[in-house]
Amino acid sequence: MNIVEKPVTTLSPDLIARFTAIVGEKYAVTDAHDLAPYLTEERNLYQGHSKLVLRPGSTAEVAAICKLASETKTALVPQGGNTGLVGGQTPHHGEVVLSLRRLDKVREVDTASNTMTCEAGVVLATAQQQADAVDRLFPLSLGAEGSCTIGGNLSTNAGGTAALAYGVARDLAVGIEVVLADGRIVSNLSKLKKDNTGYDLRDLFIGAEGTLGIITAAVLKLYPKPRAVETAFVGLASPDDALKLLELSRAEAAGTLTSFELIADICIDFCVKHGPNIRAPLDNRTPWYVLMEISSQRDDARATLEAILERGFDEGIVEDAVIAANLDQRTAFWTLREVISPAQKPEGGSIKHDVSVPVAAVPQLIAEASAAVVKLIPGCRPVPFGHLGDGNIHYNVSQPVGADQQAFLARWHDVNEVVHAIVARLGGSISAEHGIGVLKRDELPHFKDAVALDVMRTLKATLDPLNILNPGKVL
Amino acid sequence: MNIVEKPVTTLSPDLIARFTAIVGEKYAVTDAHDLAPYLTEERNLYQGHSKLVLRPGSTAEVAAICKLASETKTALVPQGGNTGLVGGQTPHHGEVVLSLRRLDKVREVDTASNTMTCEAGVVLATAQQQADAVDRLFPLSLGAEGSCTIGGNLSTNAGGTAALAYGVARDLAVGIEVVLADGRIVSNLSKLKKDNTGYDLRDLFIGAEGTLGIITAAVLKLYPKPRAVETAFVGLASPDDALKLLELSRAEAAGTLTSFELIADICIDFCVKHGPNIRAPLDNRTPWYVLMEISSQRDDARATLEAILERGFDEGIVEDAVIAANLDQRTAFWTLREVISPAQKPEGGSIKHDVSVPVAAVPQLIAEASAAVVKLIPGCRPVPFGHLGDGNIHYNVSQPVGADQQAFLARWHDVNEVVHAIVARLGGSISAEHGIGVLKRDELPHFKDAVALDVMRTLKATLDPLNILNPGKVL
Repeated sequence: MNIVEKPVTTLSPDLIARFTAIVGEKYAVTDAHDLAPYLTEERNLYQGHSKLVLRPGSTAEVAAICKLASETKTALVPQGGNTGLVGGQTPHHGEVVLSLRRLDKVREVDTASNTMTCEAGVVLATAQQQADAVDRLFPLSLGAEGSCTIGGNLSTNAGGTAALAYGVARDLAVGIEVVLADGRIVSNLSKLKKDNTGYDLRDLFIGAEGTLGIITAAVLKLYPKPRAVETAFVGLASPDDALKLLELSRAEAAGTLTSFELIADICIDFCVKHGPNIRAPLDNRTPWYVLMEISSQRDDARATLEAILERGFDEGIVEDAVIAANLDQRTAFWTLREVISPAQKPEGGSIKHDVSVPVAAVPQLIAEASAAVVKLIPGCRPVPFGHLGDGNIHYNVSQPVGADQQAFLARWHDVNEVVHAIVARLGGSISAEHGIGVLKRDELPHFKDAVALDVMRTLKATLDPLNILNPGKVL
Repeated sequence: MNIVEKPVTTLSPDLIARFTAIVGEKYAVTDAHDLAPYLTEERNLYQGHSKLVLRPGSTAEVAAICKLASETKTALVPQGGNTGLVGGQTPHHGEVVLSLRRLDKVREVDTASNTMTCEAGVVLATAQQQADAVDRLFPLSLGAEGSCTIGGNLSTNAGGTAALAYGVARDLAVGIEVVLADGRIVSNLSKLKKDNTGYDLRDLFIGAEGTLGIITAAVLKLYPKPRAVETAFVGLASPDDALKLLELSRAEAAGTLTSFELIADICIDFCVKHGPNIRAPLDNRTPWYVLMEISSQRDDARATLEAILERGFDEGIVEDAVIAANLDQRTAFWTLREVISPAQKPEGGSIKHDVSVPVAAVPQLIAEASAAVVKLIPGCRPVPFGHLGDGNIHYNVSQPVGADQQAFLARWHDVNEVVHAIVARLGGSISAEHGIGVLKRDELPHFKDAVALDVMRTLKATLDPLNILNPGKVL
């Protein structure tokens, strides 16, 4: 089954006027200069084009837009903070951009039920702050949190650095409100932990990258704010040792182990060289590092972390370690972690992979992928880092020193092919966090179960029969 | 949109022979005596009828059965341990019963990835034991665990007593294998914690009560086995105090608080009177009790529990409490909890509700529902108990002493109506754990968002266009 509907992407002045009437002149962007920020994205991988960005201020306006789009078969590309990494939020074919940013109300914070009802356009950092203000934790945390939005987080099922303990975005949503392709609104803003009244529509729209419906609001889970957070930067000889340290940490800290990030030494090189005032956390350099964090309701987080590191030393797993002495030092550790990806830029082209494998297979993945890419492009520099606790590695590859950047980036597909083949053999996923968008759309059929893919196509054709919602993305 | 397909439920001898050929004579049940256990259920609420029970031994045989059923438009009712409480597993109209019990292999236990791959027919207690044998915990736990199966647990999204810390069945499945209505197999037995490669089909089939596909296997999450488990039986004055104790316990024990069950004093009466050798855990009777449990990787579970109870006494929340001194005593506490429902039987008719509300609204639910049902049927006896930590109360109502049982049970719908109206007003669910089946099917449209219900109907029509999978259930 193929999706054959070709929605309208050329907009008549009359159609633009009808869409504009829904949101008002002020919130219909048509000026080329004002359109620009919605059409480009951070990596400059994609340059979109569109004549119209709509900025609705309510769910009702989103519904009216979808209804009109449906009646006129006009393609829409929903967009949140425009921080996506797979081209999912970009209008590649002149589609109308539906920006959800003005739906930025936190509708309710309910400390008794430990929930927070946010509209799609609430910036992740704002949601975190609002939770913090009532002594709660909204645990989703990722590099783009200062600009990405809750709607985008849910539509792409974002992961991040706290997924180890708290799960991914899907796990943090209790209920959602969704506008369907035809403009009808599914209102399921439930605060319930247990509700077995029919099919789970929530998880169908979460992670669908805006291709099945437009998420306009969500009830999010809040957690008790940890009283003690302790962070360590640990030097080790190998990913195998990091895996052993993970096991040991889990046994000791259980659910209070909230982050466990693996970092290759080359990442430290790049960060020190190109990052904003970054120092190597450990004086003794080792081939690998782990940035780990324990967050606890109790006062003994420090003692637990010390006990873990001590056992790590005793068992020969840990070579060196430092525990953040204060908040500044903790911030410095995390800044380094967040800077790895941008610090690759001055080193030239970087070919990216956002892959996951069963946790125990991470060392094998890194070993095999590194051998394979260096064989394919001698001199290229693997820059692996990521969420070891989730089996999710951002396996990036920087170009050889002095090589031609364009020539290197032209090998993107070849390098992906080699790495993804290893991932597939290990039972892994070619997109652990970032989604499919357009970047991995054509690759997906090679890795996904054919029947599953067919069911996905059937669902798309059923829920968006005119193919107006983010057409050409995912499928 | 209505589901109009009427599948075939009268079986010709030729059709029976074709189905029989798939599983073999030995595993096609047609004898009236042998059929009986598949047609009745524990509560005697439903008596099904069918000429044929098929007992396939592999996913391939399930696929062949669905394919033939699809070709001949024959209705199938999937069945696991036949412990469902809403008539979902019963052939009400002569459908062929598809028993999954022979798919009882634990295909793999992977301690490195902390996963276990079970076929649908594996009994829950067996899955628990297999996890235990490798020093892991499979946390799903409920009264019927000695006979219910993993396939049924997932198809009904079972909850139980450990959901507070570990989530419901949906949260415990990483990947699933599903046979579609037309016999195709969706193979998604992934062990990955993060995988954003398209729509989440897993959660679509989980909790769908066998109406969208047949779950034949699943990859389940394993957890570290707690080193210390401490259990207390606590006497309190009110559900409000129980809620305060829950807050206090969460603040102290965080993720190690694994159970928090609320029990009304009348439950103790019934259990002592009718249960198997049951004693009241506390000498001083109080109006309400909490059965709470802390499970920890560390040795200080006992100290934590004692600290919680001490603070509870100091703050005037706790009236009396006993901590289980040994495994026997712990077992006695839990036996009491599991016996509440059966102990209602000798007291005559019981009208049941399996409802949830936001946790903070539980005291209000109990107060309002109790006033309402007693007003409706003077002398009736509310028997509320359940998973306070999940906002999920089994709000049962026993008949007035000496009243006519049939006359009382004839008021089932009236009583439900009154209680469910309160639940709806509090933003709750009319089926927290047990599902919809046929018991609540006709009530569902009064409580569910109309658009959500319509999307559900659309999904059913798309994935099971001939309406052969558990027809008449849920929708």
